[in-house]
This record gives sequence, structure tokens and C-alpha cells, in this order.
Amino acid sequence: MKFGPDRAHTRAADPWRRQTPWIIPNAVPGTSATADIQTQPAGAHVLADGMVSLGLRRRADAIAAAFGAIEPTLRDLTPRQFEPSFPDIASRILRDRLDVSVPPAALRATWTNPLNLRALHGAVVLAVFRQLVERAFDRDHTRLTDGESVEALIQRWGFHAVDVSACADGRLSGVLDYILRVPPAVVAWRKSYAGAMFDIDESIRHWESIELRRWRDGRPNTAGVPTRFLKIGVYHFSSLDPRHEGCAAHGSDDGRAAGTLLRRLEEFEAAVRAIHSEDAGVATLMVGVDTDTDAIRVHIPDGAGRMSLDRVADNRDLYPATAALDREGAKAAIRDAVAGAAGVVADDDATEGMRWLCGYLLKNNIGQIDAVRSWHGGAYADAGHTERLIVVGDPIDDVQLRNLAFQAQMNTIEEGSGDLFIGISILRKRLEPEGLPVPVLANARYDTRIPGAADRARKRAKRLRSAILASHPALAERGLLHVECAVRAGEAPRLEPVDPEDARS
Amino acid sequence: MKFGPDRAHTRAADPWRRQTPWIIPNAVPGTSATADIQTQPAGAHVLADGMVSLGLRRRADAIAAAFGAIEPTLRDLTPRQFEPSFPDIASRILRDRLDVSVPPAALRATWTNPLNLRALHGAVVLAVFRQLVERAFDRDHTRLTDGESVEALIQRWGFHAVDVSACADGRLSGVLDYILRVPPAVVAWRKSYAGAMFDIDESIRHWESIELRRWRDGRPNTAGVPTRFLKIGVYHFSSLDPRHEGCAAHGSDDGRAAGTLLRRLEEFEAAVRAIHSEDAGVATLMVGVDTDTDAIRVHIPDGAGRMSLDRVADNRDLYPATAALDREGAKAAIRDAVAGAAGVVADDDATEGMRWLCGYLLKNNIGQIDAVRSWHGGAYADAGHTERLIVVGDPIDDVQLRNLAFQAQMNTIEEGSGDLFIGISILRKRLEPEGLPVPVLANARYDTRIPGAADRARKRAKRLRSAILASHPALAERGLLHVECAVRAGEAPRLEPVDPEDARS
Repeated sequence: MKFGPDRAHTRAADPWRRQTPWIIPNAVPGTSATADIQTQPAGAHVLADGMVSLGLRRRADAIAAAFGAIEPTLRDLTPRQFEPSFPDIASRILRDRLDVSVPPAALRATWTNPLNLRALHGAVVLAVFRQLVERAFDRDHTRLTDGESVEALIQRWGFHAVDVSACADGRLSGVLDYILRVPPAVVAWRKSYAGAMFDIDESIRHWESIELRRWRDGRPNTAGVPTRFLKIGVYHFSSLDPRHEGCAAHGSDDGRAAGTLLRRLEEFEAAVRAIHSEDAGVATLMVGVDTDTDAIRVHIPDGAGRMSLDRVADNRDLYPATAALDREGAKAAIRDAVAGAAGVVADDDATEGMRWLCGYLLKNNIGQIDAVRSWHGGAYADAGHTERLIVVGDPIDDVQLRNLAFQAQMNTIEEGSGDLFIGISILRKRLEPEGLPVPVLANARYDTRIPGAADRARKRAKRLRSAILASHPALAERGLLHVECAVRAGEAPRLEPVDPEDARS
Repeated sequence: MKFGPDRAHTRAADPWRRQTPWIIPNAVPGTSATADIQTQPAGAHVLADGMVSLGLRRRADAIAAAFGAIEPTLRDLTPRQFEPSFPDIASRILRDRLDVSVPPAALRATWTNPLNLRALHGAVVLAVFRQLVERAFDRDHTRLTDGESVEALIQRWGFHAVDVSACADGRLSGVLDYILRVPPAVVAWRKSYAGAMFDIDESIRHWESIELRRWRDGRPNTAGVPTRFLKIGVYHFSSLDPRHEGCAAHGSDDGRAAGTLLRRLEEFEAAVRAIHSEDAGVATLMVGVDTDTDAIRVHIPDGAGRMSLDRVADNRDLYPATAALDREGAKAAIRDAVAGAAGVVADDDATEGMRWLCGYLLKNNIGQIDAVRSWHGGAYADAGHTERLIVVGDPIDDVQLRNLAFQAQMNTIEEGSGDLFIGISILRKRLEPEGLPVPVLANARYDTRIPGAADRARKRAKRLRSAILASHPALAERGLLHVECAVRAGEAPRLEPVDPEDARS
């Protein structure tokens, strides 16, 4: 069977031939998308798209500013808490400066019962995060694809759905928008796990669900079209401090992180074929991220779809190797590197779609490397963790930024306690010395079409919260663990807060 | 769309016309299936099949004998534990009398460290249960269907899969073989929950999985055939002591048990239609069981597939009402009662398949009512709970018998703690006064086709065990909670014990 896209139809969609960028700089509401576009900075890589990077930079600054305003605001408020009209004043200040809503009644202090600034800090961090999610930054760049939908483009690469499992590590919090720079519409499913150790049974169910939709509804294409479901696993490592700043779930051992994920991807692919026959449409791809420079290495599948730890196209090499070339030369060099790693000739039919995708990711990522170089002097100053919060339960991917959130997807803490433990340890190390609690959002998504689903989601969010607190009783007791719950109707921008004490829901 | 089976093809499969029984009396290995068949006992109901009941009775006696031998054997052994060759002797006695294997090393006692008879009792109860499962009682009665497969017969009733969710209560432990008397091949899926409160999301996934198989593999039929997926929910009540011996999960409130289950069935059906369009093939049926007499009442769906709490065909009425009739008259009376409850004419096309199924269940159940009458004098002497053990995790349905096991299906104790709590409370009430621990088997099934699944099942079984012990620390501390774990390869007869201390698995 031939999985590669039909050449006659795909040449026109070759991303290498596109001039328009995928991501445009209009991320910050209130600023004009085109007002002060800067030209490509001097010394930039020929494949880097300055406009895209600028947009991403603006959004990053807006997010950092929102969180950065929290501590000064709370420091200002602390000594004034015993003033007579403090609750109203403080509520207004929190709204004006942080755009979060805290009712005055929650800000009432007496000399015997002063404000709990720890709890307030945790609550405000989560409120700022919720507010950023609701702001719904424009991430939908499908209109930039020359009138062709992202879905159609993916299909031309030979896929009908893309499922990404990344490590829960906060330094991958920007993996889609920043590191890989793929429009959200490309990714049908996204969950994070410590060490990227996704649940095989759940992934099989996802494969089945997507496959059934093809058969019953012909969406995104009919089952007769030989496209594949692509599962991408993303691990990470640190080029500057490999033994300490790598993946905590794998003891900061680069080889172990990649080897374990590769085995799991192979198991997933084998499982789908074993259950649904050898011709089941499934493919896997593994990507490693250097969290110091955001450079990726892509483990290129060979002609039989097999990957190895060594057969990679690595942007740490490709960036400098292509820096002095002209645009066409740089693209050709990446194409050749991908074909070389795949061990196929440059015009091999069977691997064409996958090679295009790999080249697309590598080219996009060169823009991110370039941005890190120009804005952070080559590598991030904060090589380690500075996550703001932990998201437990269902993923929240709307706000993308390095070190924003440690995301640990799980149905119950009983299954996910290892992931949660890693996340709390990471944030605690930084926050506890400052006397600040680890803010955790227990999030449950529901399908508005399913009767009773909202109510069950509220129950699940509350159950997660209870289990998180129960799993770290000493920390909770000392006020160093602040857990709230929320539910979300499908893809709606609003995270609905859930009162954990409300027995009705 | 017409969901009813095609008449021309189905008349021949009308179960009313069958003379051969579904279940034959060869359940006890070592006894001849036909050696001492008794004729229909005098006074038996005309629709009761004495041969089937006799076979079930023999199997029940064999199961009861296996458990009944435990206490006398352990009582015998207790005073002899300090004899020099006790470990070997005891191990042999346990094998000879109970057919369970306990290594001599585990039976070594000293005067400072005597045998822990509590733990041994728990272990032996679970070992006897495992051994009964491995005995693989013959429950496959498909060969009795005149050469027609059960699958084909179900399809003639208009269904392609039957999914049963019963209450976890041990008095429904024999719901398939005894109360409903359906061959196991009829039921594609079976899980139990306290109050029969099944998980809607999981049931939707099961629907999708079955549906995809129809599309991809044409099994059990192709998706073009307008058969439906049938979900049956089974609740229970007590006719003799309704306020105390009803469903513990619903406060022994008959109406609440039925009303809550009906709502959940309606929600499930609505969810499948909402997600997969109005023409998605799905049907629901609710059955209530009187645990004192095993009589069922079937909530007959009307012409639109809707059920109500009041529209029932109740065997507590139908048994006496048909007792004096001849065979054909009795069958006609049930048919009429079903059509009456459905509110349709007796030859209504659209509801024909469902009505056949309902009639089939009612007729089968008359045999069970008859058996309870003749062997237990009309109602069970033990109206309440005498479960031997609790099964947590994945279901084990091979050994069917009233009050054998409280079965609580769950992925994690965090989700299922309510069900587990009910089960432990029920067994503890009876066992604690005798100084005996509650035996719990944490069971995880795995698909042999999925790489790594066996290992993950072992991890899950061990995680369940830890969580069960952690959820009842005081009971565990006092040795009154005995939890073991096991995994099972698909439908294989063997439950593989898992060493909870073995870090490798």
C-alpha cells in the first residue's frame, strides 16, 4: 500500500514553496497586527520568519507581564489591609492592575484574622491564568494557507489526524506555538505526561474514535483514503547541563528519555496493527527538544516507518550548516538531511509525506532557534524550571509559553501520582523558599452534547482536587499547596470555576 | 428506519418454538451429565425447564461445597500447627480437601510466631475462587441452538451486541446464568457497579469500538444492517424486606434504584445519538430483580423505545397467572403482557425483536423462580448478604452464583471508592464478628495482542491493591482486610497471581 500523497496534487501544497507565514504577529489584543512590523533583523537566519517571531514575542511579553504584575500588586496591598475601606479598594486594584475579579468579601481582614496572602497569591496566579485563557489569543492561522484548510494540507502529507504527546515539563509549555510552530488546527489531540509516557490504551481509543468518524461521517476524509493517524511523541534534554536540566521523569538521562518514548511509540503502533489488522493507518514520529535553545532533533522514520535513536535530523547542526546559504540552498540542505536520515533517495515516493512534515517542523523550528538567539543570546538564561502553575486533569493548551505550566494529564491522582509528584517537587523547589504555595488547577473538560457530562466533570474536578490535597497533606497543611478546580465546555474560552464545597455539583 | 428484524427470516428462530433447553445439566465435572436426570418435578411450572435447573443446582452445590470446606479444614489444622512436619502435612491437606496450592514454607509456625489464620483464611478463600474460575464450568450453550449461532439469533432480534450493567450486589452474582439464564455468548460486555451506575463515557467508547468493528471487519455484521447495540441495566429490590434488603447504593429505595438507572440509560442513549447522529443504532432495556425470589420485572420499551418505571411485565404476577395454563397458553399470556406493557398490538413490526427478547428473558426467569420455589421454599432463607469475596477492577463472570462475590468494576479506587466502601461494609458486617478478614481480589485483564499490556495490568492490579489497603487503614492494620492481586490474559481460564512486592512487574 502506498501511503505517500499523490504527487500531482501535492506539489502545489509543498510548504517549501509558500511565501506566506503560518503565524502572524497579531497576538496581543489592542495592538495592531501590522502597525509596526519590523523587517528581518540583521544577522537572522535565512529561513527564520521575523514577522512570526515578533508576534510570538509580543504574546510572550503580554503573558509574562500579566504574571509579573502579581507580586508587586500583592506587596502593595499587604500593608494596607487594615484600612477601613480596604476590601473595596483592593478588589478594584486587583481588577485594574491584574484584570482579575476577587469579591471584596474575600478581602476582609481584621487584626486577629489578617489576609492569607499565601492563599491569595495562589488564587490570583490561577485567576490570571484563567483570564489569559479567556483572552483567546489568536492562534488560528488556517486563513494563511492560501485558502487551503490545514486539514486538507495534512492529508496531502498522508495523514488524517495528528496526536501529540509531549513531556509534562513546563519548558515544553510552548511546544506547539513556539518550538514546532504548528497551527493548533494541525493537532487533533494533545496531552502531556511526565517523560511523555502516554497511555497506550487511551491512544488506541483515540485512534478508534477518529477511525469511526472517517467510516461513519467521512470526516476528515473517508476511510478508503489511505492516509494515516500520526502520533508524535516529544521528549527533551538540556545541551548545556545534560545531567541536571534534562527530563526529571527519566533522571535527566537523555538516552533513557528517548529510548523509553521510542519503545512506547513502537508499542502503540504495534497495538493498533495487532487489533485492527496490518493495514490499519497509523504512523509515529519522535521529536527531541533541547530546552536550552529550543532546537529540535527529529527521528526520521525509514522506508518501513521505523525510527532509531541515532537516525536524526538535528537542528543544532542544521542551523549553523544552513546559516550561510541562500534560502533555496538552506531548504535543499534540510531536505537532503531528512532524506539521508530516512535512508531513502530524495524523490522516494513512499516516504514523501512524512519527509515533508519533518522538513516543515525543522524549518519552522529554525525560526524559534533564531528568536532564542536574538532575544536570549543563544540560550535561555533560566535553563531550569520557572513554571507558574500546574494543570492536572485535562489539558489547557490555549496559552502557550515556555515555563508557563507543568501539565500532567490524568483521570485520577491514583494513576498519575508519579507525574503529580514530579510537578509539585519542581514548583515547590522554587516557590517554598519564597513562602509561596504551588498553584494547581484541576481541570475537567466536558462534551456539551452528552447529558449530565457537565455535572460529572464538576465531580471529577472536585475529586481530583481532594486527591491532590490528600496526596501532599503536610504541604497542604502548611498552606503551600493551593488547589482550585474548573471545568470547561469543550473548546469554549471560559474555564468555569467550581466551588469545591458545593455538594450539589 | 425500521429496526425490527425481518419477519420472513425470524419466525424460524422464535425462541418460543424451541424445544431444546439453553442450559444443560453437565456443570459439575466428574458427574455424568445424563446419569440421573430427573423428570420435571411434580407441581413445576409448565414453562420451567427442570433439566436446566438441575444442572444449575449441581453447579451451585459444587461451588458451595468448595467454599464450605474451607472453615472445617482450617479449624482442623489450627491446633496441629506446632507439630514438626506440619507444613508438609498442611500443604497436602489443603491440596486434597480444597484443591488449592499453598507452599509448605508459607505454613511454618513457631510458638513465638504462630500461623496467621486470618490471613490464611483470606488467602484460601481467594485461592478457592481462582480454582473455581480455572475449572471453567461449561457455560457455552451455543451448541444447543439448533445449529444457529447465538450471534445470529441476537441479530434476528435486531441487535448486534448486548452490554449488561448490573448492580455490584452479590445477590446478582448469578444474574446471567441463573436469573436471566442467557448463554454467555449473548453478552459482549458486562460490568457491575454499585447501584448499576455505569460509566456513560466508557459505554460510549464501547459502542464506538463495536461500531468500528462492524465497519472495518463486518463483525458481527456489517454496518449497513440496521441492528442495534443493546445496553441492559439491572437493578434490584427485596419483596420481603424492601426497606432493608434492597440496593444499599440507593438506600434500599426501590423507586430511587430504578429511577436513577432509568435516567442513566436514557442519558447514555441520548449521548450516543448526540455524538453519532440520530440514526445511531442504540437501544436500552431495564430489568429489576427481586433478590428474595429471583423474579424479574422487565421495563418494556414502547414503540418509540422509551421505558417508564410503571410500564413493566412482572414475573411476580406472570408466574402465578400462567401456572395453571398449558405451555402454549402460558407463552401467549407472556407475549400479551409484553405487548400490553409496550402499548403496541401483538404483531407490531417495529417492536417485534425487542418484545421477543423481553419474552425470552421472562420465560427463562420463570424456570429460576420455579427452582427457588422448589429448593428454597419460595424465597431464599438468606435474604441478605453472604458474599464470599469482593472483586475489584475488571469483572470475573465465569463463576456465577447468588451471593458469591460483590463485584465493583473500576479503574482506580479514587473513582470507585464509593462502590468499594459499600462492598467492604457489606462483607465486614458478617465477617468481622467471626474474626475473619474481608477477602478482596484486585483483578486486571489484559489484551495479549497489545505489547506491554500484561506488564501494565500487573502494575494496575498492584496499584489497586495499595489503594484498597490505603482506603481502609484501620481495618488493614487489624488484619481484617486481605487483598491479593491477579491479572488475566483476555478470556483465559487462569487468573495469574501477582506478587505485590515484586518491583519488576
